[in-house]
Amino acid sequence: MRDVAIIGTGETKVGEHWDVSLRHLALEAIQAALADAGVATVDALYVGNMLAGELAGQEHLGALVADFAGLSGVEALRVEAADASGAAALRVGYMAVAGGLADIVVVVGVEKMTDALAGEIVYGRSLATDGDYESAVGGSLTAVNALLMRRYMHEYGYAQRDFAPFAVNAHRNAVHNPQAMFRFPITPERFAAAPMVCDPINLFDSAPAADGAAAVVLAPGDAARTFSAVPVRIRASAVGTDALAVHDRHHPLLLRSAALAAQRAYEQAGVTPQDIDLFELHGSFGILAALSLEAAGFAAPGQGVRMALDGEIGLTGRIPIATMGGLKARGHPAGATGVYQVVEVVHQLRGLAGENQVPNARLGMTQSLGGSGGTAITHILERME
Amino acid sequence: MRDVAIIGTGETKVGEHWDVSLRHLALEAIQAALADAGVATVDALYVGNMLAGELAGQEHLGALVADFAGLSGVEALRVEAADASGAAALRVGYMAVAGGLADIVVVVGVEKMTDALAGEIVYGRSLATDGDYESAVGGSLTAVNALLMRRYMHEYGYAQRDFAPFAVNAHRNAVHNPQAMFRFPITPERFAAAPMVCDPINLFDSAPAADGAAAVVLAPGDAARTFSAVPVRIRASAVGTDALAVHDRHHPLLLRSAALAAQRAYEQAGVTPQDIDLFELHGSFGILAALSLEAAGFAAPGQGVRMALDGEIGLTGRIPIATMGGLKARGHPAGATGVYQVVEVVHQLRGLAGENQVPNARLGMTQSLGGSGGTAITHILERME
Repeated sequence: MRDVAIIGTGETKVGEHWDVSLRHLALEAIQAALADAGVATVDALYVGNMLAGELAGQEHLGALVADFAGLSGVEALRVEAADASGAAALRVGYMAVAGGLADIVVVVGVEKMTDALAGEIVYGRSLATDGDYESAVGGSLTAVNALLMRRYMHEYGYAQRDFAPFAVNAHRNAVHNPQAMFRFPITPERFAAAPMVCDPINLFDSAPAADGAAAVVLAPGDAARTFSAVPVRIRASAVGTDALAVHDRHHPLLLRSAALAAQRAYEQAGVTPQDIDLFELHGSFGILAALSLEAAGFAAPGQGVRMALDGEIGLTGRIPIATMGGLKARGHPAGATGVYQVVEVVHQLRGLAGENQVPNARLGMTQSLGGSGGTAITHILERME
Repeated sequence: MRDVAIIGTGETKVGEHWDVSLRHLALEAIQAALADAGVATVDALYVGNMLAGELAGQEHLGALVADFAGLSGVEALRVEAADASGAAALRVGYMAVAGGLADIVVVVGVEKMTDALAGEIVYGRSLATDGDYESAVGGSLTAVNALLMRRYMHEYGYAQRDFAPFAVNAHRNAVHNPQAMFRFPITPERFAAAPMVCDPINLFDSAPAADGAAAVVLAPGDAARTFSAVPVRIRASAVGTDALAVHDRHHPLLLRSAALAAQRAYEQAGVTPQDIDLFELHGSFGILAALSLEAAGFAAPGQGVRMALDGEIGLTGRIPIATMGGLKARGHPAGATGVYQVVEVVHQLRGLAGENQVPNARLGMTQSLGGSGGTAITHILERME
């Protein structure tokens, strides 16, 4: 297997893009990534997307996006793992380059959600849950995560307001990210006053539906320097799974998919959680941020919320998360989010994160979750010195 | 890159399975394939599926199917390329094993269509076309292919009845395939009398919506004999793309995606069309069968229908196609079809095709199309002597 490097990145602003179509969003991110890498063509394109079939009336995005981006003819496929779809597409792109099946690959995550009615978005997101045993009986994605949060509060003795630091941290960091959807800070008081969505999850504990696209260009590690002044090596790429339905899991508060993906990634990279300088996790709800910190080995069970309360998730904390706003404040265009996370870690490792720069960031980790954790996909990235 | 072999296959009967769910169909095919291979666990699972989100209310099939098949925890992703999704999942499985990222991989194609209303199926299939420029203006998948067929008849001077041999051949071969949906022969007269669906495409020129699942188990070629008495080597795996919208293509009657995929596959395998003993093509409509024969180099432009009229596509003809019934008579469970094609070629290469055995079959080729040819995926398989 070959080393794989990221030699270029691109992203659109995350928000409500009612004036452009899904293919235009993908195009903008791909063009930016190809320009950043200084390449005009690729061997293959992998598209991460969750909901274009349901919300935009379009399957078959691989060939569609390839053609619209001027890459018609190249190998192009769509990869889906609910809202971990962007990371899933990166996983396949990594496989293609690592295995020697392709040299230059572009991976794009794209989602367009905000044209749809609110009910359609709730329905679309619920397709990440177990259709026969969760959503069919009213278990929307938010409802399932509300149950997890309630159980966590009961087991470990937290109050709902204790989850505020995840949102406060995300909004603080989004202020300086020009691509973020919600570029304003919030206080714990504003969090506490937010309307309830699905008790105990309130509006400021929920990542917003959004439109956006992000892209990365991959190349073999030994050729990376010819393309980029500061390439970033993919030190690990790993997928873990679990039952979709929370009631089928060994323990509702152990994200086994995330633990497996993180363990596999640490083993591939030969590192431990102590070596990771920042962690872009999948905080679509505060409860998932807490459980991800625990599953990935940054906190003991029940201590994820404690870490946030103790200020350890900030830019200069023990393990910075949501450094560019995270799912909560950068926005969560479902199938695109996994690639946004990677683009943001690359910015950090290249020293391009501006006001949000994590000092001396050398090793960064991403973790995308599908739904409430049926799938977890982890990548570890390293600045090539 | 390593050699990759198919060491086990499984398939459900194709038909209307109103009494079992999508996950049960996938389970049945996976269990059969694992039993055939004699393995109990795998390193990864890749699921090919087109329409579960729209027709079955379920995305996130990778983790769902892995869990239900007793493989919870393993890497699992869904791959989609419209009705080439099964072949797309095999492409990713091939990459994983060829690249050394996994040793034992199971690939399953699964689709459940017939619970849905007819209008929902038409809508679902139309998601393979260009949503903004074809289906939005009424260009359903059948309508787009009807335009292609009309143009072919005009350019090359054929009549609608000249397409009958594709359906007659498919139905003849399905009689002896116990897994096929329509196990009865038809005559050219019955074809001619069939009701029109979308002029000039009639009912017997259209592959039926269906439910079904098919699976294959992959292993490194050098270990294949320890699992299977008659393993089959994947000599080539290739993807080609083109514009989804027919009006955006260089020539409507040249399936550029299919030509690219076939050329790439021939190059990988170091063979020519003359070396291929059977060709499981994507005959969802007779016109696509003709265009695939031409794009893959078996017939000159305009001669695909002539080949069929001359009896060259039968089991003892120059290039047997649809040897187990094809999309028309085995049935076309969209995202599963690509894996059915591969399972059928494996049966032929192992000498297990019974009454439908192609004499001395050594090298077989599959080609799956997405929609009207936006994507084409080709695999060349060889019996390991």
